[in-house]
Amino acid sequence: MALIVQKFGGTSVGSIDRIKNVANIVRKSREMGHRIVVVVSAMSGETDRLVRLAQEISPEPNERELDMLLSSGERVTSALLAIALNEIDIPARSMTGRQVGIRTDNVHTRARIESISADRLLETLEGGFIPIVAGFQGISSEENVTTLGRGGSDTTAVALAVAVKADRCDIYTDVLGVYTADPNLVPKARKLDWVSYEEMLEMASLGAKVLQTRSVEFAMKYKMPVRVRSTFSEDPGTLVTEEEKRMEHIVVSGITLDRNQAKITVQDVPDKPGLAARLFETISNQSIIVDMIVQNVGQDGLTDISFTVPRSDARKAERLATTVATEIGAGEVRIKDDIVKISIVGVGMRSHSGVAAQMFSALAREGINILMISTSEIKISCLIDEKYSDLSIKSLHAEFRLDTKGDGS
Amino acid sequence: MALIVQKFGGTSVGSIDRIKNVANIVRKSREMGHRIVVVVSAMSGETDRLVRLAQEISPEPNERELDMLLSSGERVTSALLAIALNEIDIPARSMTGRQVGIRTDNVHTRARIESISADRLLETLEGGFIPIVAGFQGISSEENVTTLGRGGSDTTAVALAVAVKADRCDIYTDVLGVYTADPNLVPKARKLDWVSYEEMLEMASLGAKVLQTRSVEFAMKYKMPVRVRSTFSEDPGTLVTEEEKRMEHIVVSGITLDRNQAKITVQDVPDKPGLAARLFETISNQSIIVDMIVQNVGQDGLTDISFTVPRSDARKAERLATTVATEIGAGEVRIKDDIVKISIVGVGMRSHSGVAAQMFSALAREGINILMISTSEIKISCLIDEKYSDLSIKSLHAEFRLDTKGDGS
Repeated sequence: MALIVQKFGGTSVGSIDRIKNVANIVRKSREMGHRIVVVVSAMSGETDRLVRLAQEISPEPNERELDMLLSSGERVTSALLAIALNEIDIPARSMTGRQVGIRTDNVHTRARIESISADRLLETLEGGFIPIVAGFQGISSEENVTTLGRGGSDTTAVALAVAVKADRCDIYTDVLGVYTADPNLVPKARKLDWVSYEEMLEMASLGAKVLQTRSVEFAMKYKMPVRVRSTFSEDPGTLVTEEEKRMEHIVVSGITLDRNQAKITVQDVPDKPGLAARLFETISNQSIIVDMIVQNVGQDGLTDISFTVPRSDARKAERLATTVATEIGAGEVRIKDDIVKISIVGVGMRSHSGVAAQMFSALAREGINILMISTSEIKISCLIDEKYSDLSIKSLHAEFRLDTKGDGS
Repeated sequence: MALIVQKFGGTSVGSIDRIKNVANIVRKSREMGHRIVVVVSAMSGETDRLVRLAQEISPEPNERELDMLLSSGERVTSALLAIALNEIDIPARSMTGRQVGIRTDNVHTRARIESISADRLLETLEGGFIPIVAGFQGISSEENVTTLGRGGSDTTAVALAVAVKADRCDIYTDVLGVYTADPNLVPKARKLDWVSYEEMLEMASLGAKVLQTRSVEFAMKYKMPVRVRSTFSEDPGTLVTEEEKRMEHIVVSGITLDRNQAKITVQDVPDKPGLAARLFETISNQSIIVDMIVQNVGQDGLTDISFTVPRSDARKAERLATTVATEIGAGEVRIKDDIVKISIVGVGMRSHSGVAAQMFSALAREGINILMISTSEIKISCLIDEKYSDLSIKSLHAEFRLDTKGDGS
């Protein structure tokens, strides 16, 4: 008998019929003898609907209020699923982020979990109830409702799995699992049976929308096995777990494309120590995540600094950069957002040299210009013009033999 | 400078434009130098939408879960109004029932407020923020979300007004105030400038949907002046306050029609002590409110007991009555719901005799049969066939000169 946290995403609970379907999945797991904790997202479309309402009132809604607004979506789902389970005679109780003791920092709309006191959750379980937790939300030290950012319900699920010492965290979604590339872009993409935390982490942060990055970080830190699987299929999905469990490493496990990028360039920055630090401090103080950074070779004591930020933060970052540029006597600030980041990911890169060179020449053969490059131990990313999205991902998928190879085992 | 609690009902916040309109009303009151606490209902239609979702899953949804579900509607409005106020540079903060310290009993879907610890609300006010409180909800001793029943936001508003020692509680709604009768039924109905707590209490409990009964009880108990007024007009509305302030009493202030009635008859109840008590104990234990009761004259040691309950509880009450009837050896249980209760209300009845007789003969003249009667010091109610609704209310409105008289002053 295992203790399993099951998380159901927005499309999995997108209608009353689908909520009833989820109730049946939970029932079956329970009949197999497992103890279950459920985490739910808002019904698909609901968060967007609420954001639109807020934006009809204000272009930049107060973030504390936005959290109060958006947290209601998950509460609705948790109550409806609890009603559905009670209806088929399975005792269940909806629980809010506060009720399951999820304490976060005070950064509204993208709060981080600081601690979980799972007493009440465990009591509920021991009382014979299936807890149905509203994902995506917590409570700050000031007793305000906070949310964990888009996809935050994944993080809720993994964090709760760790807190209750679950055997596994199952993330139910609308795809069969983790693929070598987005099947919508690459028809030959294949589902992976297995992927390591580190690969998943790179893929998630690089724009594969299957799992929220922070949920994978949590899982990796606490070695919590995560299974990504479909609500609408019996397929076992993809197991995200530790690297050692796999016999042999393939070089590249997957290719991702991140469209949520904007490039900002500050021109003619005086080449003095501390100016770049000042720029990036100002931006990160506003909780904007800077991804790639390139500083061009200086000329006449002036350099250009380019960096990328999420597209949604681009205007804010541009404003901040312009303020700093004026203060430090730099030149114009430019923004370019018709760009994408294409990345290859694989733990095998550690032991294989020449992977980067192979990627660059494959892109060059197609006449694709590389604007920026960043690398880690297990991934290589290139910023390219958006118009090459399709061409680049298909070329690289073929180049690294993902079209045909076995899926990582 | 007064401290005023302003409550806005569902139609007042029924769209984004209307929420912006409410923000302007609040702004104007603030500019007049008042300190304001706002209480909001769910956007009109939202509670019904959520109830429908629940009922698509279960004909009798779990009540704890229903509370979790329904409480989300007011949270959405409170966040949106706070966003709207912040957008016009008025610092405002949404607050949940829990955050303003509203503690209730554990009776889900119709909880009663047990205590309010208004510290955080007062802190928020003193911090220069306008608190925007999600009405209708509280938190139980078990830390579960509870709701106060339909119209519960009125009770939230009055209870908070008492807790913060407000000078007045303004209930903004979609009508100009309290009328001598429902203007939809009686075109000659007139708005009252003033009505006493006791009259308002009778009218509210008798089906005038302007204020929730319990909010009036609260106001009367703590002598909190309540003004009922329209969100869409500058009209000062109707002031609900103590009786002494009025110079002269008119006999009948208003006439109400309650369509939410069902009559249940238990036939052939053995005429022994304790059996009626057992019946009504069983029903009230399920938190069903029994209104009128009539026991017919016994024959052969058997009597018929008839009583009325809210229509929504009729099936449940019928089931309970049937169980008890079987246990005590009574006969058939019958239900009749094509009935209404028509009532006349007025503090002047205390000092005028013959009002009941006048009512009964007015109904008799129209050929309307009276099924049940109940009276209090300041009201007389008759249960009649639903088909006479219109005829009875217009006749009585004319009979007691409400068509023409001055409005209570």
